[in-house]
Amino acid sequence: MDSTIRLVPGFSWFGKNIGIKDDTLDFGGILSSVPCQAAGVFTKNTMPGAPVIVGKKHLKDGQLQAIIVNSKNANVATGERGLQDAISTCRWVGEACGIEPSLVLPSSTGVIGQYLFMDKFRVACQNLNDDFGETRQHAENFARSIMTTDTHPKWVSGTVNGATVFGVAKGSGMIEPNMATMLSYFVTDAKIEAAVLQGILQRIVDQSFNRISIDTDTSTSDTVVVLSNGLAGNVDLEKFETTLTEMAIFLAKELVRDGEGATKLIELIVSGATTPEQALLSAKSVINSPLVKTAIYGADPNWGRFVMALGKVFQYTVSLEELKIFFGTGSQRLSIDTEKINQDAVPLAQISKLLKQAEITIEIVLGKGPYSEKVWGCDLTEKYVAENAYYTT
Amino acid sequence: MDSTIRLVPGFSWFGKNIGIKDDTLDFGGILSSVPCQAAGVFTKNTMPGAPVIVGKKHLKDGQLQAIIVNSKNANVATGERGLQDAISTCRWVGEACGIEPSLVLPSSTGVIGQYLFMDKFRVACQNLNDDFGETRQHAENFARSIMTTDTHPKWVSGTVNGATVFGVAKGSGMIEPNMATMLSYFVTDAKIEAAVLQGILQRIVDQSFNRISIDTDTSTSDTVVVLSNGLAGNVDLEKFETTLTEMAIFLAKELVRDGEGATKLIELIVSGATTPEQALLSAKSVINSPLVKTAIYGADPNWGRFVMALGKVFQYTVSLEELKIFFGTGSQRLSIDTEKINQDAVPLAQISKLLKQAEITIEIVLGKGPYSEKVWGCDLTEKYVAENAYYTT
Repeated sequence: MDSTIRLVPGFSWFGKNIGIKDDTLDFGGILSSVPCQAAGVFTKNTMPGAPVIVGKKHLKDGQLQAIIVNSKNANVATGERGLQDAISTCRWVGEACGIEPSLVLPSSTGVIGQYLFMDKFRVACQNLNDDFGETRQHAENFARSIMTTDTHPKWVSGTVNGATVFGVAKGSGMIEPNMATMLSYFVTDAKIEAAVLQGILQRIVDQSFNRISIDTDTSTSDTVVVLSNGLAGNVDLEKFETTLTEMAIFLAKELVRDGEGATKLIELIVSGATTPEQALLSAKSVINSPLVKTAIYGADPNWGRFVMALGKVFQYTVSLEELKIFFGTGSQRLSIDTEKINQDAVPLAQISKLLKQAEITIEIVLGKGPYSEKVWGCDLTEKYVAENAYYTT
Repeated sequence: MDSTIRLVPGFSWFGKNIGIKDDTLDFGGILSSVPCQAAGVFTKNTMPGAPVIVGKKHLKDGQLQAIIVNSKNANVATGERGLQDAISTCRWVGEACGIEPSLVLPSSTGVIGQYLFMDKFRVACQNLNDDFGETRQHAENFARSIMTTDTHPKWVSGTVNGATVFGVAKGSGMIEPNMATMLSYFVTDAKIEAAVLQGILQRIVDQSFNRISIDTDTSTSDTVVVLSNGLAGNVDLEKFETTLTEMAIFLAKELVRDGEGATKLIELIVSGATTPEQALLSAKSVINSPLVKTAIYGADPNWGRFVMALGKVFQYTVSLEELKIFFGTGSQRLSIDTEKINQDAVPLAQISKLLKQAEITIEIVLGKGPYSEKVWGCDLTEKYVAENAYYTT
């Protein structure tokens, strides 16, 4: 696995500007030379965008051949007209590329509650086939075209038994452990049946994109899709899943690192839980706590806020005598034993120094239970507020 | 009801500095000339502070005669030693005032995870009886001594059938609809049995302090207590409850208005819900959404974020065709009909203007159901981040 662009035989890309909001790349696509086996995971938000509704329908038979994405407008809360707009877009892409519209998955990301300018989409689709290309630049343009408040494009590559996997993703607010304003697309020439691919994808998303949090808000557009064109033949499925998991975790962490206004990536492990639920709820409560997030931003060793956040998980009681909080890893690891707090013994100055790093690992041991969870989050900064206070204006 | 200080016969007050952190008032008390009937509601956080544990115990028989509070240190996550410190404080107050230690309710608010400096507390309690006084200045000093990040002291007064009620409160972060870093004390000379008072207080807290939110964090110290010394005799209980409800809502809104970094008070009504739970969950989801809060801070009419926040309540589905969002009240009221969004028809400029006001009323109509909820919250600003990034350093 590495963070380069690896081209996958049979897949072509484009990213261009069609003037949705400004002159940055805002319209992109992926096209396979043959129909692909496909799998997808979508937002749990009960008010999904029109493209999510249409995309789920098109994915039902496990087949896709193209993905079309626009940024700057999410086509969410746009009712029947929004649905028709997503359907029209798929039809135009199908016509331009000579494939069935039902083989096109649409995605939109950006502001909610505004209609797409369909005139621009119609014109943009007219000679679409000429836009697609198989160079690294084409793939990079696609990765850039799906960005909203991301500060840089995100991709990752891997190989399994001679097959290649390439993935791209965009963040970067509204990212809660149930996915978020995130889109991610993986393509591979490994040959995998849609049903098998779907199972693999769900497990992978659960360990990666469902374990990250930026601001607890859950987007209406989240989509993760894998396309397999089969050109490289069969691969070891276990190896494939391991590779794809690593790649998804890499991208998930990239999303958090590039979270709106974020300056630090926090890896939080909660262990010693009596149930898997306790581990996850506790991890989410801490990683989402505004007071924890601001303290980490300020490198303030205010560990009492961890105690507060754990105590917000009303379903489970943690004994202060058993609770331990570790900052850092390996020989750098510093511990707070809440049973014997003592101003001199708690290494506050060292913890503060450690919290100044760009990547911080924290482990909370709740007790003697066997369950643990790992989640990733970021700090809360003035820049997050500034970025989100004037988004549509 | 008014926002003045009304002295209640039989109650005396003090607030002074004992050097817990700096030279501001940090130690205060309320003393009744006779034992009071008392009621209390405490934090639901599973890691409550030592004073909460001791206070609950002392309140068990429904009798209290004094309240002793310190700010700047919450005495939370301090284990057995913290418990002993809270118990010692009550004993010293009891000795100084000639009352049973079990008639003293202790409260502490401030940083978590540090021991109290008991030497200072012992000295501070030695001539405590001389500190108490019955003037407005004494009551004001008490209200100031319990402040942490509050920018001003908060109080409210009312009268019922010739009896007086006076209440004070402090905020102002960690305030979620399950109470928060908040302390509030009411005293009255109305004569009410402890058991009756407890029922009244629980209903009142549910409609006031449990309906406000600043940052979703739930403090380990929240305490609301009422003392009734009975000197004014019986009162109409219904009238008493109505007055106390108004007073509590007044203080609750004061806490939100003075929330950390807040510039705006948001009153949110969610109506048309099919169940009471849907109304409350939806209201909380919106009022707590960082993206909604930042948009309101920026006066950005980004109503799509309301749709996103409503869609995060996974248990209930809202139909976009039925959803309506109203901004403002009376003739100022502006509506967004999500069924027919149309850039020209949605009064975005007017909504933005309205969102610039210091108090904003928003009503969300989910559908045709009979249930509604009212909650109060504030915007999320750079100042919240700045205040909380360096709290202990």
